[in-house]
Amino acid sequence: MTPRWDLLLTHATLATLDGEQPFGLIKDGALACANGRIAWVGRMSDLPSAASAVRTENLAGKLLTPGLIDCHTHLVFAGNRVREFDMRLNGASYEDIARAGGGIASSVAAVRAASEEELLQQSLPRARALLRDGVTTLEIKSGYGLDLANEGKMLRVARRLGETVGVGVRTTYLAAHALPPEFTDHADGYIDAVIAWLPQLHAAGLVDAVDAFCEGIGFSPAQTRRVFEVARALGIPVKLHADQLSDLGGAALVAEFNGLSADHIEYTRDDGVRAMAAHGTVAVLLPGAFHLLRETKLPPIAQLREHGVAMAVATDCNPGTSPLLSLRQAMQLACTHFRMTPEEALQGTTVHAAKALGLADRGALCTGMRADLVAWNVAHPAELCYWLGGDLAAQVIVAGQPSL
Amino acid sequence: MTPRWDLLLTHATLATLDGEQPFGLIKDGALACANGRIAWVGRMSDLPSAASAVRTENLAGKLLTPGLIDCHTHLVFAGNRVREFDMRLNGASYEDIARAGGGIASSVAAVRAASEEELLQQSLPRARALLRDGVTTLEIKSGYGLDLANEGKMLRVARRLGETVGVGVRTTYLAAHALPPEFTDHADGYIDAVIAWLPQLHAAGLVDAVDAFCEGIGFSPAQTRRVFEVARALGIPVKLHADQLSDLGGAALVAEFNGLSADHIEYTRDDGVRAMAAHGTVAVLLPGAFHLLRETKLPPIAQLREHGVAMAVATDCNPGTSPLLSLRQAMQLACTHFRMTPEEALQGTTVHAAKALGLADRGALCTGMRADLVAWNVAHPAELCYWLGGDLAAQVIVAGQPSL
Ligand SMILES: [Zn+2]
Ligand SMILES: [Zn+2]
Repeated sequence: MTPRWDLLLTHATLATLDGEQPFGLIKDGALACANGRIAWVGRMSDLPSAASAVRTENLAGKLLTPGLIDCHTHLVFAGNRVREFDMRLNGASYEDIARAGGGIASSVAAVRAASEEELLQQSLPRARALLRDGVTTLEIKSGYGLDLANEGKMLRVARRLGETVGVGVRTTYLAAHALPPEFTDHADGYIDAVIAWLPQLHAAGLVDAVDAFCEGIGFSPAQTRRVFEVARALGIPVKLHADQLSDLGGAALVAEFNGLSADHIEYTRDDGVRAMAAHGTVAVLLPGAFHLLRETKLPPIAQLREHGVAMAVATDCNPGTSPLLSLRQAMQLACTHFRMTPEEALQGTTVHAAKALGLADRGALCTGMRADLVAWNVAHPAELCYWLGGDLAAQVIVAGQPSL
Repeated sequence: MTPRWDLLLTHATLATLDGEQPFGLIKDGALACANGRIAWVGRMSDLPSAASAVRTENLAGKLLTPGLIDCHTHLVFAGNRVREFDMRLNGASYEDIARAGGGIASSVAAVRAASEEELLQQSLPRARALLRDGVTTLEIKSGYGLDLANEGKMLRVARRLGETVGVGVRTTYLAAHALPPEFTDHADGYIDAVIAWLPQLHAAGLVDAVDAFCEGIGFSPAQTRRVFEVARALGIPVKLHADQLSDLGGAALVAEFNGLSADHIEYTRDDGVRAMAAHGTVAVLLPGAFHLLRETKLPPIAQLREHGVAMAVATDCNPGTSPLLSLRQAMQLACTHFRMTPEEALQGTTVHAAKALGLADRGALCTGMRADLVAWNVAHPAELCYWLGGDLAAQVIVAGQPSL
């Protein structure tokens, strides 16, 4: 029987992210989709001669990669924090900014004041910008609502964004992001509430994972552990904002819970890296905030390589510390600031980002995976990290369907 | 008589870059075009009640700025240098890269090998990417041809880019960019040739300005002076790649010739800054190369401010050290790396960039200027420096005509 495919892309430069070659490169390759999945991938010369497809397109050497995966975003928010950005560059201190009503509290107030529809409308252009630059799956966190109604509102908007824009969305419950004004000086009481809200939101189908901000200015390891224990009891995977500004042992803590990922980890030391390696916890590196805050403490890239910890790269799209609307820019910053190789950066937004989200059905060009694909106006995969700006995505395909 | 305009834009947030307000801001403003020029600009409340226009558009609060001006690019080139970029991040030394045929010599070989049509086709997407992100005038340098035929080819391609894409282009003759293989160890002989070619190319209408690379690894101040003297005799304005890697007194040299701009100037000291101030020479700051090369020596921003030297910001778009396809990204990098304020960054790509190109008819929203305009999907001008990536330009208008 001859295969009959929905779509056949020929003469592509395939970065499969699979196999022994750097980038899993296949120079003159072809890829076929059927029923939203990758049905065949390989060299042009190996293409079955009897194969046919409803639609065939010659990519004329264009680079074809898996759809990019942005595994750490706070993309649902209201307003922005450009005023702080401007004040800071005009010499304002953190106190000045706080006095002017800036900081995360201003994002919480804006999200609470926005209707669900307003929040959706404000977040849509950001999700579309990511898609336009090649992102076909993204993670979105709550964490600016900080009460049951508003955390639920954020997570519903995240789900609706996925449907409206036509991208894959994974939701993360991050109520333990900051202390809301109702709980000033009562962090343990707030953690009680965070734990109480979780089962309801989870039952509503709004929670794919649970996260917390474990930091001196966030929540303690003991408070984080309490949240994680409830998540574990509910069977929800965990991840953590860990060791960004100091080493509180966050990476080891999330690894102990077989967490999907430890994120930021600038201050993680060898024991944390070893724990991540032992539990298969992915390192999610976030060069956007590093860049904007002009940080100098680099994440332990050499140790992560040495211990074979998978490294992902994400935008951390958020209004305060990383207003990134392009995952490619995050890859560029990861190469420039963290000295990651272009291959590591691309693994970090495909195969390793999929792992960071617990998704086994995407992130590489392999038979059976979702046909999430990007055809790029470049010839070599390292160009995705090389150019800053520009309109490089020629076609974005989600589950076999053209999206751009 | 009531005015009858071609186009009237109402309810815009105007960043006029003119007047006393930061950004020359007018909150609820209007702007009218007639015959490709700005015919009226001001507050909605001051709009003549009898005014009418062929086409009226309500911008509903969107930001309207002058079209951005990229006053320093090497955008015409063939191939790219992604291989070097990848090798460097994989630990290759400069010697390894030179042995593999990398560096500027590879760009020279690629430009010489390309036909004029190929060079145009390869450069077009870059010019279109800049336009898409709000650039309506750009400067383009020669300097990868390094012989009469190929320098002429580059400059003709620059002119054709302007016509094809529909943006303003200013050409700069930069034959004194590097020593071609024909002149190895004969830099003075090459300068003789550079000087001999200039009148021919200028007579052909291809040279709006003259530039050189004055540096230990480029040409000496004495050689630069010889080129400048011929430019002065022909009445062509000069500019200079000055003091990027060391202080050779380049800024003072170009100022002495009443140069349009001194570019890079990381190592310029107080005497150079004073000379620039005295002669009205603009400081063109190039954060893209600074970023990619991870430089640490900052240009003397405080001294430039103190002496009132106008600061421009440009992409320096080039395949080796600054593969930037967005002038907004250069503004973001100028804020992050150089601590320029968003207002300085926007002045640097409008009113000061126009000055750096010797253009008095653009760079601000003033009556009589060319109607080069960008309507942005943002509310505040500082957002142009705040977001990284994204598709922010809603409309780009060149000489009164929609271009995007
Ligand atoms: Zn985050
Ligand atoms: Zn340059």
